Amino acid sequence: MGRPFYSEPRFFLHKTHDLAEGVKQGQLRALAKAITLIESHNTDHSPAAAALLEELLPAAGNAMRIGISGVPGVGKSTFIEAFGLHLTRLGHKVAVLAVDPSSQISGGSILGDKTRMEELARDPNAFIRPSPAGSTLGGVARKTRETMLLCEAAGYDVVIVETVGVGQSEITVASMVDFFLLLQLPGAGDELQGIKKGVMEIADAILINKADGDNRPRAELARSQYVNALHLIRAKSDHWQVPALLCSALHGEGIAEVWETIRDFRRAMEESGEFAEKRQRQAGDWMWTMVMDELKQLFLHDPKVEALLPRLQEAVDRGITTPGIAARRLLEAFRRP
Amino acid sequence: MGRPFYSEPRFFLHKTHDLAEGVKQGQLRALAKAITLIESHNTDHSPAAAALLEELLPAAGNAMRIGISGVPGVGKSTFIEAFGLHLTRLGHKVAVLAVDPSSQISGGSILGDKTRMEELARDPNAFIRPSPAGSTLGGVARKTRETMLLCEAAGYDVVIVETVGVGQSEITVASMVDFFLLLQLPGAGDELQGIKKGVMEIADAILINKADGDNRPRAELARSQYVNALHLIRAKSDHWQVPALLCSALHGEGIAEVWETIRDFRRAMEESGEFAEKRQRQAGDWMWTMVMDELKQLFLHDPKVEALLPRLQEAVDRGITTPGIAARRLLEAFRRP
Repeated sequence: MGRPFYSEPRFFLHKTHDLAEGVKQGQLRALAKAITLIESHNTDHSPAAAALLEELLPAAGNAMRIGISGVPGVGKSTFIEAFGLHLTRLGHKVAVLAVDPSSQISGGSILGDKTRMEELARDPNAFIRPSPAGSTLGGVARKTRETMLLCEAAGYDVVIVETVGVGQSEITVASMVDFFLLLQLPGAGDELQGIKKGVMEIADAILINKADGDNRPRAELARSQYVNALHLIRAKSDHWQVPALLCSALHGEGIAEVWETIRDFRRAMEESGEFAEKRQRQAGDWMWTMVMDELKQLFLHDPKVEALLPRLQEAVDRGITTPGIAARRLLEAFRRP
Repeated sequence: MGRPFYSEPRFFLHKTHDLAEGVKQGQLRALAKAITLIESHNTDHSPAAAALLEELLPAAGNAMRIGISGVPGVGKSTFIEAFGLHLTRLGHKVAVLAVDPSSQISGGSILGDKTRMEELARDPNAFIRPSPAGSTLGGVARKTRETMLLCEAAGYDVVIVETVGVGQSEITVASMVDFFLLLQLPGAGDELQGIKKGVMEIADAILINKADGDNRPRAELARSQYVNALHLIRAKSDHWQVPALLCSALHGEGIAEVWETIRDFRRAMEESGEFAEKRQRQAGDWMWTMVMDELKQLFLHDPKVEALLPRLQEAVDRGITTPGIAARRLLEAFRRP
C-alpha cells in the first residue's frame, strides 16, 4: 500500500510489532493490550492501531464467526455459556464479544460481563470481552469487528458476537458474522409477536430456548409457526433453508445440534462458494458504511451547513419547502468553497 | 427562507407563476407541463422547478397516498383499474404514478402504460403518468414524489404509487405514501415463498388477488398463513393490526373492502396522531436520503478519492487492510484541501 497518509512515528511501529508477535503467540496480556489500543479514543493512537491490524490481518480470518441475538430474558448468557463450554470440550478456542449500543448511555456494559458466564470465563480456552464504549453504533461496531480480527490472529477459531438487539444492532452484528442465530422464547400466536423489523430475515437459524418441562409443547407449536413464517420469506441462499431449532440451555439439551447446524451451514456455503463471497461483500459494505457515517459527520459539522440546517429543516417540517429542494440547498452550501 | 442560493431569472419565475395557477385550477395541460419541468434533466431548469414546487406546496398534501406493489403476474394493473374506477365512482379524483427502476435500463416504462388500464385512462377523474426516467432510484423517486405533490395541488385526492418491486423500490415507495398495500397471489406453503426481504414488514395490508373459482380455497389457506406470519412480526403501530384480505380484481370482488380498510387505517392513524407524524418523519428522512445520495456522489467523483479507491478496495478485498483503515484513508484524502 506504500506509505500511509498519516504520520507513523517509528516509536509506535516498533512497539506494535512486538505486540503483534505476542498476539500471534496467543498471549492473553498482548491480546488485551492490543484490544485496548484498537478501542482507544485518542486519535494519536490510530496509526499504531492501523499498523497493528495490518500486521495481524494475514493471521486472521480463520474463525467461524457467529452472531447471537435475543431479547432480555431469552437466556442468552446461559446459552452462550453452555454452547461455549461444548465447543471448548470439542477442542475449540472460543472468544465472546458484544455489540451493545446501550453502553453508549451506561458507560459500562450490560453484556460480556464475566459474572454472567462464570464457568466459561474460567475456561482457559475461552476469552470474554465486554462491549466497547462508543458514541455511535458504527464506532462500537468497528471496535468489535477489529477485536474479532485480533482474536482470530490469537488463535480463537470460534468468535461469538452477541447483542441485545437495541436499534439497528442486530443488522450490524449480522453484517460482521458468517452465521446469525436468533434466540426466541417458546410461545405461540400473539405471544410470539415481537420479532423486530428485518430481524427474521437476517437469521440463519431460529433457536427456541427454554424448551423444557411445561414449555415443551408450546415450544413445539412455536417451532411449527416459525417454520411456516420462514416459508413466506424469500430464502437468502438457494443452498440453505433456515431451520427453527429447540434447546434447553439450562439442561444442556439441543446444544450439540446447534453446532451441528452451524457446521452444516458452513459446509453448504463453502461448497456453493457463498462463504468467501459473503465475507468479501461484508468487508466492502463495511468500508462504505464507515465512509458514509463519517461523511455525514463532516457534513453536519460544516459551518455553512450548520448555519442553514435549522431553518431548512423547519421549512421542510412546516411544508414550506420540499425535502428535495432543501437537500439541494444544503449541498450547494456544503460545496461552496 | 430569504433569497435562494442560486440564480432565479425573473423570466422563469414569471412563467412558473402562470403554470402554478393552471395546476391549481386542475388544468391537465398545465399539470403535464409542470411534471415535465420537474422531471427535466437540465439543471438550468432547477430554479424554476423549485419555485413552482414552493408555490404549489401549500395547496398539496390533501390526498390519501397509497403505495401498491406485487410481482409481475399478480394482477396489479387489473386491480388498480378496478380500484381506481371504484374511487372515481365514489367522487374521488385519482392519480396513478409509478416508481420503476427498470426504466433506467429500458428508457421507457413498463408501468403507467395507459393501454394497461384503458377504461381508467379514459376516466376524466383519473390521471395516469408513466414512470420517469432516471439514472438512480433516488432520482426516479424524487421526481415521483414531487409529481405526487403537483397532482395533489391539482386536486387529486387519492394518489396511487405503484412499483414492480425491483431492488429497493418497495422500500422507497413505502417512504413516500401513507398506506402500503402488498398484492400477493393465492397459494400456500412453499408456493408462497418469495416475499422480498423487509417487504412484509412495510405492508399496511396484504391483499391476495385472484381469489376466485378454483383458487378460492388456496387463497383462504394463504390468508391464514399470512395472518400467522404477521403475528410473528412486531406491529409498526399499536393502533393497526396488518390485515390479510382477499379480492378478485377480475370479477370486481373485494375492491370496496380495500378502500374501507384504507379509510379505517387513516381514521386510526389520525386519531392516534401517527398520520401527521409519519408524513413529517417521511419528509425529514427524504431530505437526508437525498443529501446522503449526493454526498456519496461527491465523494466518488473527488479526484483524490478516485485515485485511491481502486487500490484500497482491492486491498480490502484481498484482506491486506481492514475496511476501517481503508475508510479512514479515503476520508483523509477527501478532506485534504
